[in-house]
Amino acid sequence: MSLKTDPRWTAYRSCVEAYLAGCVPQAAPARLREAMLYSLMAGGKRLRPLLALEFCRLCGGDWEAALPAACALEMLHTYSLIHDDLPAMDNDDLRRGKPTCHLAFDEATAILAGDALQALAFASITKADLPAGRIANCVADLAHAAGAYGMCGGQQLDLDGEGKPQTEASLTRLQSLKTGALIRAACLIGVHAAGGTQTQLAAAGAYADALGLAFQIRDDMLDEIADEGSLGKPIGSDKKQGKCTFLTLLGLDECSKRVEMLTQKAVEALAAWDGAEALIDLAREMANRVS
Amino acid sequence: MSLKTDPRWTAYRSCVEAYLAGCVPQAAPARLREAMLYSLMAGGKRLRPLLALEFCRLCGGDWEAALPAACALEMLHTYSLIHDDLPAMDNDDLRRGKPTCHLAFDEATAILAGDALQALAFASITKADLPAGRIANCVADLAHAAGAYGMCGGQQLDLDGEGKPQTEASLTRLQSLKTGALIRAACLIGVHAAGGTQTQLAAAGAYADALGLAFQIRDDMLDEIADEGSLGKPIGSDKKQGKCTFLTLLGLDECSKRVEMLTQKAVEALAAWDGAEALIDLAREMANRVS
Repeated sequence: MSLKTDPRWTAYRSCVEAYLAGCVPQAAPARLREAMLYSLMAGGKRLRPLLALEFCRLCGGDWEAALPAACALEMLHTYSLIHDDLPAMDNDDLRRGKPTCHLAFDEATAILAGDALQALAFASITKADLPAGRIANCVADLAHAAGAYGMCGGQQLDLDGEGKPQTEASLTRLQSLKTGALIRAACLIGVHAAGGTQTQLAAAGAYADALGLAFQIRDDMLDEIADEGSLGKPIGSDKKQGKCTFLTLLGLDECSKRVEMLTQKAVEALAAWDGAEALIDLAREMANRVS
Repeated sequence: MSLKTDPRWTAYRSCVEAYLAGCVPQAAPARLREAMLYSLMAGGKRLRPLLALEFCRLCGGDWEAALPAACALEMLHTYSLIHDDLPAMDNDDLRRGKPTCHLAFDEATAILAGDALQALAFASITKADLPAGRIANCVADLAHAAGAYGMCGGQQLDLDGEGKPQTEASLTRLQSLKTGALIRAACLIGVHAAGGTQTQLAAAGAYADALGLAFQIRDDMLDEIADEGSLGKPIGSDKKQGKCTFLTLLGLDECSKRVEMLTQKAVEALAAWDGAEALIDLAREMANRVS
């Protein structure tokens, strides 16, 4: 069941694209709105909303009602990319094959576009046609994942560690905050949007943690094995910048083994769950992706 | 009933200070945590949480239960100050008499500290011991005020307008988004935290809009009439930077008249409301503040 061609993923993705295209308030100042939409509509796999929607469906929820909460994950993710690319952070020129937001607009606008996308993510959750208790849970999931002991904390560890040696343990901690926390939130938000059980939350969390780490290790591998056109950024840039990644730490073969092992773990987390084939296939597909 | 000495405001303020001092997750990376607390605990009037707590009490709510939602307003406000001070934005060196966050730490850390404070604000609301429907309303209030058609939108209009002539109407629109929206959210969150009525929401909104604009005009006046020590930043800096403010647009006398008129409007919004004396006194005190 391929992420690109399967009808279920395709249906989710087209709803996500349509929702995102219309989510920025019309009344917002034009330049800010353009910058937000420039980054939001630059493409990407939409992995996080897709995870949320499929977990919602799997728990018996109404995925269309959950759409605004699922799309909040993409708004949050997009803001983090805009801020990560800023001159004071990673100072990147290209993102998904296009000039980064601060180059296409300017630095101040990029900072504000990121800030406004974060606020929009939380606004979006409150617009989902779900019981208030589920909305509050989704807000809590996203806020925790986005914060000082989540994504921002991981980015700070990344800054603190620049040029310093990392161990596999310290890099794993960094990545579990920087990228893992939001992938975890995506899966939990799906369960929470459906009013799922504690057992379902635990399984979704275990799947997410294994998938998130496998995703990051594969991401690091792509710096060596991808081709530039499909990756949307220069190959070998991590290496050139002397960045410590799973690839530089473990080498390509060991990275492959880790990805395989973690993917197996993700699959096992959902093994007892009827109807989880799409999520199992997704984990396997992510493990072999080339962009 | 003075904001500095009255027992009710003093009780609120000491609860707010205590809550803010303990709100950043202990497990967060140390440098990020320090930067967040550096800016969060730098003092300030705590006007926004105080407004929320008093409106909550006034609507018959439990203000202590609303404390995490009220403090979220200060987290959001503090993040906006950190980002406004950044080199790419206003490039300010001093805030509340101390070096700005990006000078005390570094630019990347300041960006992240702001980002993490915004996330923490939403996390904090979900921790309030309130029914889920009220939590969802408070999240919606804050997210709207913080976003592209709120605070960030106002900041963008400020950037767009630099060096261009403003009218009183365009400056009023800018300020109603940049600073007014969050003051409005403070008052609405207080009402929502108490499960208040539509009539109470409308009165709180009318009070907030008048207070917010009076507050901003008085702020602009202080660039001429305050003394540097109590203001915590250099006097005459707006003028030196050629900034268009209500002071440069209208002059000191006309600003005084506007503040008086708006304060009267704020007072009238609450005139029919038993027990609103503290909020009425607060509006009057803000109109005459010197820092």
